[in-house]
Amino acid sequence: MVNYTFEPDVLRKFSSRIFQKFGISEADAEVIGNVLIETEFRGINSHGIARILIYAQRIEKGLINPRPNFKVLRENATSALLDADNGMGHVISSKAMRLCIEKAKKTGMGTVGVRNSNHFGINAYYSMLASQENLIGMVFTNTSPLMAPFGGREPILGSNPLSIAIPAGVEPDLVVDMATSGAARGKLEVAAREGKKIPEGLAIDAEGRATIDPVEGLKGALLPFAGPKGYGMCLMVDTFAGVLTGSQFGHEVGSLFGNMDRPQNLGHFFLAFDVENFMPIDEFKQRMDQMIQNIRNSKVAAGFNRIYMPGEIEYEKSKKIRAQGITIDETVFRNLNELAQKLGVPEL
Amino acid sequence: MVNYTFEPDVLRKFSSRIFQKFGISEADAEVIGNVLIETEFRGINSHGIARILIYAQRIEKGLINPRPNFKVLRENATSALLDADNGMGHVISSKAMRLCIEKAKKTGMGTVGVRNSNHFGINAYYSMLASQENLIGMVFTNTSPLMAPFGGREPILGSNPLSIAIPAGVEPDLVVDMATSGAARGKLEVAAREGKKIPEGLAIDAEGRATIDPVEGLKGALLPFAGPKGYGMCLMVDTFAGVLTGSQFGHEVGSLFGNMDRPQNLGHFFLAFDVENFMPIDEFKQRMDQMIQNIRNSKVAAGFNRIYMPGEIEYEKSKKIRAQGITIDETVFRNLNELAQKLGVPEL
Repeated sequence: MVNYTFEPDVLRKFSSRIFQKFGISEADAEVIGNVLIETEFRGINSHGIARILIYAQRIEKGLINPRPNFKVLRENATSALLDADNGMGHVISSKAMRLCIEKAKKTGMGTVGVRNSNHFGINAYYSMLASQENLIGMVFTNTSPLMAPFGGREPILGSNPLSIAIPAGVEPDLVVDMATSGAARGKLEVAAREGKKIPEGLAIDAEGRATIDPVEGLKGALLPFAGPKGYGMCLMVDTFAGVLTGSQFGHEVGSLFGNMDRPQNLGHFFLAFDVENFMPIDEFKQRMDQMIQNIRNSKVAAGFNRIYMPGEIEYEKSKKIRAQGITIDETVFRNLNELAQKLGVPEL
Repeated sequence: MVNYTFEPDVLRKFSSRIFQKFGISEADAEVIGNVLIETEFRGINSHGIARILIYAQRIEKGLINPRPNFKVLRENATSALLDADNGMGHVISSKAMRLCIEKAKKTGMGTVGVRNSNHFGINAYYSMLASQENLIGMVFTNTSPLMAPFGGREPILGSNPLSIAIPAGVEPDLVVDMATSGAARGKLEVAAREGKKIPEGLAIDAEGRATIDPVEGLKGALLPFAGPKGYGMCLMVDTFAGVLTGSQFGHEVGSLFGNMDRPQNLGHFFLAFDVENFMPIDEFKQRMDQMIQNIRNSKVAAGFNRIYMPGEIEYEKSKKIRAQGITIDETVFRNLNELAQKLGVPEL
């Protein structure tokens, strides 16, 4: 398979043109492009430019509203609840986190919930909007069901990822971004295609028996990471993102790829927290640097070359990809160009 | 081994008398007793009445201040930073969560950090103070080091537990309470005594190699749950509880049992969040009940009799133990009575 590498701005412009063809405003299309490009920088190409294809399909089918009328349903000094009017998740989520940041800078804390939304890309994009402003950011979103509760066998829970971004000083910010499942469904799909087994503890078959066969796992359900611990975190995320925002939750959330007949109606929850409630930002950052250096300089385990902090691998990829360009594979390249042709947008 | 069962109030009074003998005020001694008794109700006897013994030793050695002068170091409408003055963790933590609750009821959100504190028992006691007031509660604390970073081999991180308590309606509140390690150190100690192996993924030996031998694991380090995921959550907890509060963090935190020569100087972080920022409490509780019932009524996996919600097992134990009394084993019974004799307190 041939890969194609592009300067980020070429893909950014391409993305913006595609989305504008669907009636999305120029400003909103640029927000979506920024999220996709930053995601590529972090090396997470499963959630990057390739996703234009499914978003386009959903907009074409009328499952995503290209011209949403965002509404503020509730608001006070520390919080707000927004209705995304079934628009692109990236646009409302960027606005929601910026509103959090504004509130946190005034009152020390901002929380914003979003209902009636769609897939928003990666959580870390939004949590890092806060850490870039010297705040601690947290982002929860619910997702379509694919995971069984601890002790259950039906895939009625989302993988419900969460992210936390914490500003450091001379060190890269600490960025946690993880699903509450033991593994992504995509990992099982790859193993199934390659005829490989999967590690224990990631999936159950349709009867709820532990399996290392990815084909059986895909018929059954994913499992939460670390059993009851991942299950607990999954429900916490769904409580904030789904229950509290008035979105769908649990098995009712629509799938980006699976439900081409109805909107996703998922929810997000954003939090920004001002460390200056507790100590001056410079002192905090020095202490974060100290924590990071204590860990990084400790002894390495057998089989490891060095100790990474959460988000550090993505930070290093980001520096590299920013300089060297974004690579997409041949299938994605062809599909994007087909879409461009259809819409009358200049091809890549 | 003989076990002894007591009415809760007998143990509560006993605990209160012991702590008062060390110069702790009656009010503070009662707070400590309440935490210990509620912990016993939840079936977590490792953190209950038996802990009187180590607290007493530390107070006797001057490592815990029985008459602390709590200070408010910083405060605004949504947050406060408290100095525990090296007092008992239970007392300052009860105050801290009550302050959170007060702030959350006024502004929608309360966060309180505590520095210079000691072991406070179980996180869930404090998060549930919030859920009992119809708020969502979160509690983080750092602990003494026993866990290696992902990719490392030195035990330089605490097991740093976190708890989240969420109010439900007719269903029991949802209560997550978990360490960020894969298992408690006590689990390895029990396996070592019994000559048993431990599951994979819980510990490494002194060279940082994966081990299922608990003796080797005790010489090495515990591992975070789910590798980088538990590692990320561990650092998040230490950031809030340790770095942000100005307490010790990472390898510097003193051990309850291991460091009988210096105070623990650990930190806690409390958060209370008013769901009425987003929706009326009754609607929220109905939605939580729906989430819980959807999960509980889904199909059970092979090898399970039913699906429990986070905190539900402890809730059921609590009903039973509250009615039937609290059971302590012979060793704890004898040691407590020895202590009582020494202090001139009526024996159990």
